[in-house]
Amino acid sequence: MNPYARRFVSQGHLVDSGLLTRMLNLIVEEGADYEVLSFRLGKTNRDESHLELEVRSPEESRLADLTARLVALGCYERKPGEGLFRPAPRDGVAPEDFYSTTHHRTEVHVQGRWREVRRQRMDGVVVLEDGEPVCRKLRDLAAGQAVLCGSSSVRLAPPARARDPGLFGFMQSEVSSERSVENAVRRVADELKNIRAAGGRIVVVAGPVVVHTGGAPALAALVRAGFVQGLLAGNALAVHDVECVLYGTSLGVELATGRAVDQGHRNHMRALNRIAALGSLSAAVQQGVLESGIMYELLRSGVPYALAGSIRDDGPLPETINDMIQAQGAYERILAEASLVLMLGSMLHSIAVGNMLPSWVKMVCVDIAPPVITKLADRGSAQTAGIVTDVGFFLRGLAANLMGSV
Amino acid sequence: MNPYARRFVSQGHLVDSGLLTRMLNLIVEEGADYEVLSFRLGKTNRDESHLELEVRSPEESRLADLTARLVALGCYERKPGEGLFRPAPRDGVAPEDFYSTTHHRTEVHVQGRWREVRRQRMDGVVVLEDGEPVCRKLRDLAAGQAVLCGSSSVRLAPPARARDPGLFGFMQSEVSSERSVENAVRRVADELKNIRAAGGRIVVVAGPVVVHTGGAPALAALVRAGFVQGLLAGNALAVHDVECVLYGTSLGVELATGRAVDQGHRNHMRALNRIAALGSLSAAVQQGVLESGIMYELLRSGVPYALAGSIRDDGPLPETINDMIQAQGAYERILAEASLVLMLGSMLHSIAVGNMLPSWVKMVCVDIAPPVITKLADRGSAQTAGIVTDVGFFLRGLAANLMGSV
Amino acid sequence: MNPYARRFVSQGHLVDSGLLTRMLNLIVEEGADYEVLSFRLGKTNRDESHLELEVRSPEESRLADLTARLVALGCYERKPGEGLFRPAPRDGVAPEDFYSTTHHRTEVHVQGRWREVRRQRMDGVVVLEDGEPVCRKLRDLAAGQAVLCGSSSVRLAPPARARDPGLFGFMQSEVSSERSVENAVRRVADELKNIRAAGGRIVVVAGPVVVHTGGAPALAALVRAGFVQGLLAGNALAVHDVECVLYGTSLGVELATGRAVDQGHRNHMRALNRIAALGSLSAAVQQGVLESGIMYELLRSGVPYALAGSIRDDGPLPETINDMIQAQGAYERILAEASLVLMLGSMLHSIAVGNMLPSWVKMVCVDIAPPVITKLADRGSAQTAGIVTDVGFFLRGLAANLMGSV
Amino acid sequence: MNPYARRFVSQGHLVDSGLLTRMLNLIVEEGADYEVLSFRLGKTNRDESHLELEVRSPEESRLADLTARLVALGCYERKPGEGLFRPAPRDGVAPEDFYSTTHHRTEVHVQGRWREVRRQRMDGVVVLEDGEPVCRKLRDLAAGQAVLCGSSSVRLAPPARARDPGLFGFMQSEVSSERSVENAVRRVADELKNIRAAGGRIVVVAGPVVVHTGGAPALAALVRAGFVQGLLAGNALAVHDVECVLYGTSLGVELATGRAVDQGHRNHMRALNRIAALGSLSAAVQQGVLESGIMYELLRSGVPYALAGSIRDDGPLPETINDMIQAQGAYERILAEASLVLMLGSMLHSIAVGNMLPSWVKMVCVDIAPPVITKLADRGSAQTAGIVTDVGFFLRGLAANLMGSV
Repeated sequence: MNPYARRFVSQGHLVDSGLLTRMLNLIVEEGADYEVLSFRLGKTNRDESHLELEVRSPEESRLADLTARLVALGCYERKPGEGLFRPAPRDGVAPEDFYSTTHHRTEVHVQGRWREVRRQRMDGVVVLEDGEPVCRKLRDLAAGQAVLCGSSSVRLAPPARARDPGLFGFMQSEVSSERSVENAVRRVADELKNIRAAGGRIVVVAGPVVVHTGGAPALAALVRAGFVQGLLAGNALAVHDVECVLYGTSLGVELATGRAVDQGHRNHMRALNRIAALGSLSAAVQQGVLESGIMYELLRSGVPYALAGSIRDDGPLPETINDMIQAQGAYERILAEASLVLMLGSMLHSIAVGNMLPSWVKMVCVDIAPPVITKLADRGSAQTAGIVTDVGFFLRGLAANLMGSV
Repeated sequence: MNPYARRFVSQGHLVDSGLLTRMLNLIVEEGADYEVLSFRLGKTNRDESHLELEVRSPEESRLADLTARLVALGCYERKPGEGLFRPAPRDGVAPEDFYSTTHHRTEVHVQGRWREVRRQRMDGVVVLEDGEPVCRKLRDLAAGQAVLCGSSSVRLAPPARARDPGLFGFMQSEVSSERSVENAVRRVADELKNIRAAGGRIVVVAGPVVVHTGGAPALAALVRAGFVQGLLAGNALAVHDVECVLYGTSLGVELATGRAVDQGHRNHMRALNRIAALGSLSAAVQQGVLESGIMYELLRSGVPYALAGSIRDDGPLPETINDMIQAQGAYERILAEASLVLMLGSMLHSIAVGNMLPSWVKMVCVDIAPPVITKLADRGSAQTAGIVTDVGFFLRGLAANLMGSV
Repeated sequence: MNPYARRFVSQGHLVDSGLLTRMLNLIVEEGADYEVLSFRLGKTNRDESHLELEVRSPEESRLADLTARLVALGCYERKPGEGLFRPAPRDGVAPEDFYSTTHHRTEVHVQGRWREVRRQRMDGVVVLEDGEPVCRKLRDLAAGQAVLCGSSSVRLAPPARARDPGLFGFMQSEVSSERSVENAVRRVADELKNIRAAGGRIVVVAGPVVVHTGGAPALAALVRAGFVQGLLAGNALAVHDVECVLYGTSLGVELATGRAVDQGHRNHMRALNRIAALGSLSAAVQQGVLESGIMYELLRSGVPYALAGSIRDDGPLPETINDMIQAQGAYERILAEASLVLMLGSMLHSIAVGNMLPSWVKMVCVDIAPPVITKLADRGSAQTAGIVTDVGFFLRGLAANLMGSV
Repeated sequence: MNPYARRFVSQGHLVDSGLLTRMLNLIVEEGADYEVLSFRLGKTNRDESHLELEVRSPEESRLADLTARLVALGCYERKPGEGLFRPAPRDGVAPEDFYSTTHHRTEVHVQGRWREVRRQRMDGVVVLEDGEPVCRKLRDLAAGQAVLCGSSSVRLAPPARARDPGLFGFMQSEVSSERSVENAVRRVADELKNIRAAGGRIVVVAGPVVVHTGGAPALAALVRAGFVQGLLAGNALAVHDVECVLYGTSLGVELATGRAVDQGHRNHMRALNRIAALGSLSAAVQQGVLESGIMYELLRSGVPYALAGSIRDDGPLPETINDMIQAQGAYERILAEASLVLMLGSMLHSIAVGNMLPSWVKMVCVDIAPPVITKLADRGSAQTAGIVTDVGFFLRGLAANLMGSV
């Protein structure tokens, strides 16, 4: 039995990132064998490691599959060939063996050298535009466009473990309701201050639970104080916010007292009708009907936002984007150049955003349900710092840390 | 202090439905007083009860609010006036005091007699079409259309408690993982058989967890055996189903073994690309590419389905409806005349569907997470029978009950 | 078919408590029939209702079972016989048909009149002591003691719905993480203040999550300020509290920073060893080793506490009661005359306490997991106000409401 | 700044176990520095790796703490001194700097050579008995006994990753309800068969949810078929089992129909009274009162079991061990030589057992709630295979796999 073999190289912080462990385990799980040709462990914390490896498998097709997966972990062929680009057979269709992107920093071997892929995102394809590799969505392919195929000329740089003792070094893979979140709140506050001091952009993804749990005034205050450079949400967040401002309720529950004050959704529908009558949220602000709240502060400060529609929407509000292709585009534009994304109580929008982001953008995810955070991490967004707590309490604590009490 | 007062009548199964309890408690919670003018308790289980009540409040506006809420519980003015219809000021905008519908059977006092509202749904408005009251969505209003305002000429018939010892009598408000679900599976099977025997329509709402938990073959078998008259889902269910059929994986996890076999989503994207290349799911079936699975069985049997897009979609598939207004319309058409809706592991689509249904359509909701079921009930869909269990096990058990082992 | 029949009476707030609904539904569910002989609905909110009912069943044994369950809802035989007391056959053993108590206020028809049962608790038996009915545990029965059998001479008074707009009126059956808990915290604070102003006793049941989530200083402050008249916990709470005071960690996680600082449990074991070396917690306080924390404040203020052992204990601490019979006794003594029990993040101890309390003692249960609260209610402790939130945040909020910031 | 330094050695499967990653990250997190003196990566999957490392820290005390934690990961001093044993100052008290055990295989350098510690368990101390190191609980120490102090003469062997493609290789750290559990059931069945074929011992830890979810007949069948060599539970499991056998209910819910058939706990108390009258469970079996169920099968087959009391017990049954010190002893005796422990729906007992076991005993934990499984892993029992599913369905599936349908 003459096994098929390939030689790979990898370098970087292979040990502290856990990548070396995952590479070797993967090879064994897949029924293949390896021989370490050379390995140099970084002498100190600052030094990189360097690996050369031969992988052998009895079947050629399994070796090809394994190669694709090793590449995703940061291995690359010792002697990479020239990137293979083949034409898209139709609009929105890639060749069968197209290379499907991860969210990690990626290089392709083009014209004899490694070139970084621009606009990196998950689940995309790599095309050549003006000779440069760029990430695109499948649906945006034009027939004939040159699409990268196979993974043998690809090199990834999965993120190393955070080297500083801050928020992300500290909380990696913590998903537990049995932790004091006081520190987490403080660390998130510090992170946000540092980002703003450095001119970075903070994008908030928010679900309606922000309003239900009484966190809307704190989030509005964060917007006013300049800690929010973009907001991504659904129609529901905005309707709840407006309902709360106009009638003091959220889904018919009076926020000041917790008392149910109408039969079900009546104030919700009144809020929708009111905005529809005025024409838009911004008209409501201009005409002085909406004088506080999250949406008011966003509009007053000119902070961009995108409200994505969903199958369960009431209304929707005039500003809600009902076409999902357009909504994804609007989300992507607001996410461009984001330094950190703060996700508050919305699994749907958080996963959507996680898929759009390259892996080096930080994410903080706050939810009262541990499975939501586990699921986010599960989907491949390992740089998430997860905090299991009450969203309303979290936001008030964050605002108190950033601006004194609200 | 001269209180304002109104007299209400209510009749029906007021005690066993719990409505009488809720009416009297509501009045007290709202700071009002009541005097029972007369009450006749149904002598036996078959007899209806009859109530006359005077409600007094020190403030006229609070009495109006209270009236709206009592009407939602089935009270109506002893001497109803003629329904007040006023013109919609603009397209998609109702008069400020519009009557916002519940999902319960509703009558309006028009031209001196009670007339039932057609196309009943939640969070709608009532308009007059050809002299008959009909339920419409706010956004579908045309300027000038006659819209019902206030609630003093409205009469609701909230559903009485199920009188038979079947599925819904038995499981009301059960949300617990500490129950044997064997019986529940059997009762659901009996209910489905009875509905089909009577020519009723069963609509399934399904999330991708159906595929992840290995329930797809059982659901496909239910379709083949004629137990599904419509399927409502998102893009993800269909992509997972296709990925599973073509490559044996679901999000890269091999279903036959549980082993992760690719890096993340690669097969997922390949499945999308494959269908895009063929043009559509139905083309994939016609060309023999797709030869089993949920989507295959639906297409083969001509069972209607609707795949709603969402902000987190990959692809999407050509059949996915990306515009949410259109998607809601497609859902509503498939739900028309449904006898029972079986909701499997998708909170988003289940709540969407719950809002579209009148309260007399039965819903069975299966999810491993108790909060999902609680939330569904919370939103006003009290006729839900909730079953907390593993969706895959549930579907296999259901198929075994209905058709022998699958 | 000549059915067996019995006549029952019930009076009180039968409608707003929901009892009438439950009675009539129960009869139907059990396959029996009823005829309302008379019913008088309380004319106003302050008036009681009065019911006379004949229940008929085709089988005598089912009628007996049904009678037992109707009695538990507050029905009683129109012509009650004299309470049937029969001797316990052995120590710790009751006659087969013994009456098993609920936690509701109970009367027994003895010597021609209704007499209230003393020391009411769940799952007990009623014995005659000095001619008076008293509640005892099965295991405490002495051979020959007179034990109440059957339920035909028993009358219960299940609690009416809270008539005031306070904490319990407001929160009934709310189990949701989608609520603002700010109000709930404020209402609990008000309730605690009122109870203390009236000289009532507040007992706290606390799990180790109080320490993990950083709530210990707030709870200690509540003790110091006189808001805690007894504490019920397990060994773990006290060990975590001591570990936190002595080493600043909880299970090896530094509370001030959230950093893991030892390998697993080392500080935990050191804390146990330290107290063992000193002889007891109180010795540690007297010798100035323990100078703050929950246990310190309890010991300094002389507030009684009981630490129950469990199968998973490390140590345990010298004060921990390892015998469960004795531990239950210690719990019961501290619970005597409690006005309100505040349960913080411990399902095990909370359910234990719920079983010991009569139904008129208020319970507030705080946990981040909705199922814990549902389960508590499920076990028959319907007077629970459940708050789904982060326990640490809750305690800090409560302390801030009661005493300004801590 | 002249840093303190120590040199460590480690060898074994350092990379695929992830230990090397954890060592290097730990050093950095603790503010220390390292220099790799030499590292040899195992050339193939079968070869071990070998590391020599110098660790430097500016503070001596922090270096000592760090040493303790590195030792827990499998590092040991390059030139270990002789193990330092000091006398216990009192019964049940260790010297302040006692070495606190992990559950990993441990050696101590005694009289110039490494000797394996016997009776390994978590959170114990190491004493010398007849010159050999043995693990003991703190509370079992006798004054004067020689107790190991410090960690500089200790060497651990944390378990390497499973090298075979079976249950534990496959499921490591999977905690998700979004997986097909069919495979997991099949793999657990295979594992149990293999263990029994090799003469191994399977111990089951079971909570009352086994009975509530209808899994009791399947578990009883597993006992009868010889797949259970010991059962660890609380009083509640046995009472529910007896209630189910004698009256067909579990906490008053009829298992065959799911109908509530008594008011709360009456059958539960009757079951307890019945067994009390007979004297014991075994008397109930001998007298033919108990003729099926889990407890019946255990008693009939002579399989040892231990029922630990708890603060929330009713009864308890005569066989229940009310003293927790004794109950822990009984658990430990049954766990001796266990090959695999199957944990079914009981967090309390599962964590207790996890603390008693050395790390090389396999554990399979089945629960419908993901946090339970996360928590188990969190407590340091990383060899757990966690399966999120309905316990009743799981047991029926397992029995079907092992013995055909039950």
